[in-house]
Amino acid sequence: MAEQPVQADQLHAMRHSLAHIMATAVQHLWPEAKFGVGPVVENGFYYDIDLGETKISEEDFPKIEAEMQAIIKSNLPFERSELPIDQAIAWAQAAGQPYKEELLNDLKRAGTTIAKDLNADELGTIAEGDAQIENVSFYKDGDFTDLCRGPHVESTGKVGAFKLMRVAGAYWRGNEKNPQMQRLYGVAFATAKELRVHLDMLVEAKKRDHRKLGQELDLFVFSDMVGSGLPLFTPRGTVLREELVNFSNQLRQNYGFEKVWIPHITKKDLYEASGHWAKFGDELFLVKSQETSDELVMKPMNCPHHTRIYASQPRSYRDLPIRYLETTTVYRDEKTGELGGLSRVRSITQDDSHAFCRQDQIEQEIDNLLAAAHEFYATIGMDLRVRLSYRDESDAYLGAPELWASAQEQLKKAVVSNGLSYFEQEGEAAFYGPKIDFMATDAIGREHQVATVQLDFVMPERFELEYVSDDGTKKQPVMIHCAIMGSVERFLSVYIEHTAGKFPVWLAPEQVRVISVNQEPATLEFATQVQTRASELGLRIVVDNSNESVGKKIRSAELAKVPYTIVVGEKEIASREVVPRIRKDMAVMDVQLTVGLEQFLGTVANEAKARVLKTSL
Amino acid sequence: MAEQPVQADQLHAMRHSLAHIMATAVQHLWPEAKFGVGPVVENGFYYDIDLGETKISEEDFPKIEAEMQAIIKSNLPFERSELPIDQAIAWAQAAGQPYKEELLNDLKRAGTTIAKDLNADELGTIAEGDAQIENVSFYKDGDFTDLCRGPHVESTGKVGAFKLMRVAGAYWRGNEKNPQMQRLYGVAFATAKELRVHLDMLVEAKKRDHRKLGQELDLFVFSDMVGSGLPLFTPRGTVLREELVNFSNQLRQNYGFEKVWIPHITKKDLYEASGHWAKFGDELFLVKSQETSDELVMKPMNCPHHTRIYASQPRSYRDLPIRYLETTTVYRDEKTGELGGLSRVRSITQDDSHAFCRQDQIEQEIDNLLAAAHEFYATIGMDLRVRLSYRDESDAYLGAPELWASAQEQLKKAVVSNGLSYFEQEGEAAFYGPKIDFMATDAIGREHQVATVQLDFVMPERFELEYVSDDGTKKQPVMIHCAIMGSVERFLSVYIEHTAGKFPVWLAPEQVRVISVNQEPATLEFATQVQTRASELGLRIVVDNSNESVGKKIRSAELAKVPYTIVVGEKEIASREVVPRIRKDMAVMDVQLTVGLEQFLGTVANEAKARVLKTSL
Repeated sequence: MAEQPVQADQLHAMRHSLAHIMATAVQHLWPEAKFGVGPVVENGFYYDIDLGETKISEEDFPKIEAEMQAIIKSNLPFERSELPIDQAIAWAQAAGQPYKEELLNDLKRAGTTIAKDLNADELGTIAEGDAQIENVSFYKDGDFTDLCRGPHVESTGKVGAFKLMRVAGAYWRGNEKNPQMQRLYGVAFATAKELRVHLDMLVEAKKRDHRKLGQELDLFVFSDMVGSGLPLFTPRGTVLREELVNFSNQLRQNYGFEKVWIPHITKKDLYEASGHWAKFGDELFLVKSQETSDELVMKPMNCPHHTRIYASQPRSYRDLPIRYLETTTVYRDEKTGELGGLSRVRSITQDDSHAFCRQDQIEQEIDNLLAAAHEFYATIGMDLRVRLSYRDESDAYLGAPELWASAQEQLKKAVVSNGLSYFEQEGEAAFYGPKIDFMATDAIGREHQVATVQLDFVMPERFELEYVSDDGTKKQPVMIHCAIMGSVERFLSVYIEHTAGKFPVWLAPEQVRVISVNQEPATLEFATQVQTRASELGLRIVVDNSNESVGKKIRSAELAKVPYTIVVGEKEIASREVVPRIRKDMAVMDVQLTVGLEQFLGTVANEAKARVLKTSL
Repeated sequence: MAEQPVQADQLHAMRHSLAHIMATAVQHLWPEAKFGVGPVVENGFYYDIDLGETKISEEDFPKIEAEMQAIIKSNLPFERSELPIDQAIAWAQAAGQPYKEELLNDLKRAGTTIAKDLNADELGTIAEGDAQIENVSFYKDGDFTDLCRGPHVESTGKVGAFKLMRVAGAYWRGNEKNPQMQRLYGVAFATAKELRVHLDMLVEAKKRDHRKLGQELDLFVFSDMVGSGLPLFTPRGTVLREELVNFSNQLRQNYGFEKVWIPHITKKDLYEASGHWAKFGDELFLVKSQETSDELVMKPMNCPHHTRIYASQPRSYRDLPIRYLETTTVYRDEKTGELGGLSRVRSITQDDSHAFCRQDQIEQEIDNLLAAAHEFYATIGMDLRVRLSYRDESDAYLGAPELWASAQEQLKKAVVSNGLSYFEQEGEAAFYGPKIDFMATDAIGREHQVATVQLDFVMPERFELEYVSDDGTKKQPVMIHCAIMGSVERFLSVYIEHTAGKFPVWLAPEQVRVISVNQEPATLEFATQVQTRASELGLRIVVDNSNESVGKKIRSAELAKVPYTIVVGEKEIASREVVPRIRKDMAVMDVQLTVGLEQFLGTVANEAKARVLKTSL
């Protein structure tokens, strides 16, 4: 009989219950433990724990896990109870749990307005409702009681399969002025099989870690002198960037988009006009002019600049759509999390575009952009599905409701006509317009948000954009924001892991490697001839004529994940034929065939030009 | 008999004497005039004058010029005299010349160390020598006496030909806290003929003013909200940028340069290491992170970043030269002078490259770069000459003298082997190495500094760059900086004026315009067919099917300086032949020939691909 898949909220309760079970086990092992908060996170749970001088390490995991298994085996019920807030505080004092006491005191003082200081997960463990707090709830499993909103599973036996993953430092309530606690992470799934799939995926993900591959394949580097979150791209990494960007651009140029160019800084006046200054002013990089009194900022987006080009001339209804395309770098002053990687950077290159169109042109424009995004992801071999993000009935949205209704309908039509897999979600629109978000699934099953197409009814109004309509009156255009990769850097982090560095020929920084069997002048000359011919065909080729064994040189080409390698010596010079070694993921059969040199190079060049996706990832 | 050309110092004396004559005339017309300084500048002279409430306007120029001509006609001698400094001060007081008095007092107080507060021209009017001031010199022409170092021409009759050009506000000693004076500018040449040539050139230059053409041809715009010195490029201007940049890059990619990518900001640590922070720290745009304590700056150059890519791996003598290429924008916190133009901007895009090579590779590398620069300027039709800038015998230079001697010899060899017109200048090298500066002459005879190739012995040392040499020891590479256009923006300002906006086909934002003779469906359909076919061939084509007369549409294409225009109607549809209208500067003969449509489009596409320079500027 097939297993019933568990519901999301049931899985949530399992994971949350495991956080309690882990705390129970820790309390058994270290009775002096002080507990912070223990929420559910993606794929699992954590608990923040303070053991004073004692520090839990990964070596302690087996004994914690064993104790957790014992608690699970006992199948103790989760029992809910309530206490008035003052009694709850007394309980925390008596239990020697100062963090819980602090939370309860805050809760008493501020009711749920405390929400602003805590993230949603942390809050979830405290209280419910949004009125003045009277009672707070507790959950008890065996000898462990915790302040908690619940819900939990019925008993400790019903928590599925779990594994402790890591322990990290975490400041109490995220504030570095507070004591540092230890955050114990675990993953959990409803079944052992699901857990196994997840753990296997993590092993595979680690092998493909783009930070590791970025170094091994010499794609990008960081420098302490330049700073964190600011990658520098080597020649090989730059090939990858440029080929992807050119393709992303070309797909839109086919639909009439034209490149423009804007500077990376602006007076803050531009964002005062757009409204971003009021909203995001404290998240921007401020630029200080020492020579003038200008107050400048680095651009965190491109749209306000692009409106200035639109507005530089009078526009007629016949001129529309006007379509600007620009791949340019924006800067966002983020606390850089994951160091050394491209997932989160401060220099964010966007393959951005903005179309200004009439309302009756929305569907066609969206249709074009969806076709471009669809072709992009089909070409690189990632499955896409899209979310249609609509407004809800609240008044959080700007722009006329009829305009929204018409626009949402046009979005959906375009999605359907492009045959895209989609789902609809009300209340997910931006306040300025409905949008389409693209999710791409990578080779190991992870889903990443990538492209986006967004309608915007607000910015044209703020910047007083207009065109003369066919009846001579002035009307406001609609703006359509689109990025196909989104952030090029973040996309690369996804794509490098998707391919594990085994790029298709059109993207491979090195497409062909020529290995000389010896260092005879005739061999070297022939290798150079091959290189020259390949370069003429626009191929990226490297000759390895180092004084190493052929075996070692082949191994080196394999490590560099070069799609095609040819070994040249006396025989190849005489026959002008080669036996190309094909990178394993691309080979249809496990045999090597002899082919004329010219034919081989021509085939590779055509494969690159046609952006063939031969690789099976 | 041919005129003897005047020497540079003689022309200087003429212009300086004209400044005195202008002051003399102004004193005759406005006896209350207070005088500041009156130096020689390029092509002429100026004098700063304070008339209190009265303001001189261009309407006053005829009477000032008439008075100057009278003084010239009188041929009064310039008489030199000297006074002890205290008597000179008394003279200034008695004459009611407070600005002169201030200069003399400063001079007395500080000797010539005052030089630091004044620019060289201003100082030139005051005193000579660098010891303690005793006497200061005066020059007198007629009833006007001025504190002045001289030299002057013998008498007022010997000043050649002049014309007053404009009057502008100027703060006393360039400080906005000081009183605002009026600066009267004039141009002057040894002969009336030379003056006429210069004035004609100015008329022509005005017609070609790139700010005017930038607007007329819709190439770039400025926005008050974005800020001065920060141009935004429209689709048409971006075509121009991209085509030029791609060509500049391609020429170096042919010699093995590879593109890299760096962010626009960096921690200031990078410039502390390079030494730039100490030298130029107060000229940088500082970037303030609100989220972290990082001290960041916008990059004003790319080389330090590029060294970080070089240094990210061990390098062997066999890997060299390593050649990085990147067109990227640097930001310099300049007081923006000429508003609305590209000559002086704060966002400066450089077509930059850096080669890291062994000492024995310098000549070949330089040779390659010179060939690239030579081809670039030959293709766009500007004459080049180069300055070889060497060190002198002073100790102002870093790096071993043998290295300098060898490098300078290699530079010269490369210049000679490229058949470039050159001159040599000692003492013009950078402190870090010798260089080659390229000067290009535009269509109306103005010379502009453009490309540069610079050797650098210092930065590799500061950044501890190294490679393993063939004997296994670690050695330091030499770095070669090169930019072919230099600043893309500044280059565009020169190039737009050079061509007067009549771009060759490969650079024309719009290469072909199709004009429909009427709005019949068949005509419009044919125009669209032509457009589709042209786009397939990679041409930039625009269809004008507006409801205007053919004459008006042709005029509009002429104003847009489109290289080729074709008119299509019934006849063209039937014959599939067209009679292309060729932009006048490109036409070999003043006749129009009938040609097959396909042949026409193919010819234009080939012309663009081959970067043919047909235009006679």
